[in-house]
Amino acid sequence: MNRIDVKECVSLLKEFDNYLILTHRNPDGDTLGSAFALHRALSKLNKKSMVRCVDPIHPKYSYLWDGIDNEDLEFDKIIAVDVADKKLLGESFEELYGDNVFLCIDHHLSNREYAENLLLEDRAAAAVIIYELVREMGVEFTPQIANCIYTGLATDTGCFLFSNTTPTVHRIAADVMEKGADYTFINRLMFETKTLSYLRLEQMAVSSIESHFDGKCAIMMVTRKMIEESGSSSSDCDGIAAIPRKIEGVKIAVTIRERHDGSYKVSLRTVEPYDAAKICANFGGGGHHAAAGCDFDCPIDEVKSSLLKVIKEELK
Amino acid sequence: MNRIDVKECVSLLKEFDNYLILTHRNPDGDTLGSAFALHRALSKLNKKSMVRCVDPIHPKYSYLWDGIDNEDLEFDKIIAVDVADKKLLGESFEELYGDNVFLCIDHHLSNREYAENLLLEDRAAAAVIIYELVREMGVEFTPQIANCIYTGLATDTGCFLFSNTTPTVHRIAADVMEKGADYTFINRLMFETKTLSYLRLEQMAVSSIESHFDGKCAIMMVTRKMIEESGSSSSDCDGIAAIPRKIEGVKIAVTIRERHDGSYKVSLRTVEPYDAAKICANFGGGGHHAAAGCDFDCPIDEVKSSLLKVIKEELK
Repeated sequence: MNRIDVKECVSLLKEFDNYLILTHRNPDGDTLGSAFALHRALSKLNKKSMVRCVDPIHPKYSYLWDGIDNEDLEFDKIIAVDVADKKLLGESFEELYGDNVFLCIDHHLSNREYAENLLLEDRAAAAVIIYELVREMGVEFTPQIANCIYTGLATDTGCFLFSNTTPTVHRIAADVMEKGADYTFINRLMFETKTLSYLRLEQMAVSSIESHFDGKCAIMMVTRKMIEESGSSSSDCDGIAAIPRKIEGVKIAVTIRERHDGSYKVSLRTVEPYDAAKICANFGGGGHHAAAGCDFDCPIDEVKSSLLKVIKEELK
Repeated sequence: MNRIDVKECVSLLKEFDNYLILTHRNPDGDTLGSAFALHRALSKLNKKSMVRCVDPIHPKYSYLWDGIDNEDLEFDKIIAVDVADKKLLGESFEELYGDNVFLCIDHHLSNREYAENLLLEDRAAAAVIIYELVREMGVEFTPQIANCIYTGLATDTGCFLFSNTTPTVHRIAADVMEKGADYTFINRLMFETKTLSYLRLEQMAVSSIESHFDGKCAIMMVTRKMIEESGSSSSDCDGIAAIPRKIEGVKIAVTIRERHDGSYKVSLRTVEPYDAAKICANFGGGGHHAAAGCDFDCPIDEVKSSLLKVIKEELK
C-alpha cells in the first residue's frame, strides 16, 4: 500500500463522491473528532459521507455530530481515521470492511499500512492531520469543524498535559479557538466532569492504598463493595488506575479491581525504566512498557503476594 | 497611581539598578514564575534583584530559581508581581513594604491600583505580561526564562483547561516550548505528582461534600483535623478547590478551609454565567469571574448559611 502526503490525500478524496468513514472501536475524542471534522469538510466539497463505529458512542460526544446528516448512504469508498490496524475496527467491522479500506488517515507508529496511507507519526493526534487536510482542501473552518479538531487535540494530549504535546498542537489549538471552538464547553465536558458517585469511589479506593518497598510500589484496591456503596458502575472505573501512579516516589503502581465473579483484573502503571508489560507477562498478561494488565482468579492475598514477588525483582 | 503600558514599564525598569521583587502570599506558580522570569530578564539588563515572599515557597518550585543569585540586596525600588492588593503581600510584608511599592505588574480585575500599575486584566496569567515585557526589553528568552513563563501560564490556566485560556496563551506556550521550556518535567511536577498524604486529604475532603440547590452548589470542607490526620501541610491544599467544581451539574463550587487560627478561607469556583467575584465581594473578598475567594471569622454554620444565602440569589 502507498504512503501518500496531505496534497495527494486531498486529490484522492476529490475523486469520489460518497464515503464511509470508520473510527476505531472503543471510540475516543480523537477518532470521533477527526471523523466528524472530515465528514463536515467533505460536505463543503459537496461530498456525502457517513461516520460509523462498531461500538456505541458515549452521548457526551453528541456535539460533534450536532446538526449533520449522518444517515445511511451508498458509499463508493471507505476511509479509516485514527485506526492503526484493521483489527481495531472491531471484529464485525473488520469482517465487513477490513479488506476494503481505501484510505487510512493515522498517526500511530504501530500502523499496519492496510490501505492508501496518510500516516504522519509525529503528529500528536489524528485531528492534527485532519486540520492540515482541511486547510489543503481550502474549506472554511466552521465553528463545528473547529470543535471537532479541538476535541481530538485536547483529548489525545490529556488537555495539553502529556509529553506528546508539541508547539504545533498549541498553535492549532489557538487557531481553532479563534475559529469558534467552544473550548470552555469541551474542556469542562471532557476533563472536568465527574459524577459524585465516581468521586466517592475514588475516595474509597484511595483509602485502600498500601505502600511497599520504601514507597516505590503502591497497591490500590477497587472492590465490588466500593462500587456498590459509592453508587458507581464498573464502566466508571476506567480512569481510576491513573491515581496510584500520581503518588510522589511511586515507580510501579498497581490497581486491583474485583470483578462481579470474584476474579481480579490488575492494571499496572510504571515510570521509566520499569516495565509494566514484563511484570504482567509473568501472569499471562501484557500491554505497553508503561501500562499493562493481567488477570487473577485466586484469593486477594495470593494476588498481592504473587505481584509483590515479581515487582520486588523488577525494582532491583 | 498611574496606569502604564508595557513600553512605559520597560522604560521605568531601566531607570533603576536594584529591585526587590515581591510575590503574593501563599505563592503559586504564576506569581513565582513571573517573579523569577523578571529577575532573570533584569539580570540580562545588568540590573540586580531579589525575589521575596512572606510565606515559605514549596520546594517543588526550586527549578524556577535554579542557578541564580537571589541573595539579600540593597534595593532602590520595589516591584510587586501578580499582587492585586498590598494586603496580599501578607501582613508583615504589607507593613514593611506596602506603602513603598514602586511598580505593580498584575492581571487581576480586583487590582487596587496601589503603585505605578502595569495592569492588563485580559491576560490569563501575570506570566503573559512578563512574556510581553521580556520581548519589549529585547532580552533573549533563555530556557530558564522559558521555564518560568511556562510555569505561570500552565498553573494559572490549570494546564490550559480553565476558561481563562486564550489563543494567546496557547501561542506563548508554543513559543516558550520552542525556547526550551521543559514542559514534560513541569507538567508532571505541577499536575501529575501528589503526595500520599495529599491524596488522603482529598479523600477526607470529598467525604465532606454537601450538595445544595438540586446539586447546583457543592460545599467541601478542609478542616485542620483533616490536614493533621492526613499528614498534609496547608500549603498542600492549593489545588483542592478544583474538586467540587468537577461534580456533574455543579455550577457554584465552594471550598472552605479552616486556618490555624480557626478562621476560614473560602474559595469559589463557578461555571458560566455565575460570578464568583460578585459572590465573594459580599464578604469583602474578590478575584475573577470564575474563581474568587473571601475570608470569614465566625462559626462554620454561619459561614455556610451566609454563603448559601448569597449563592441562592446568584443562582436565581
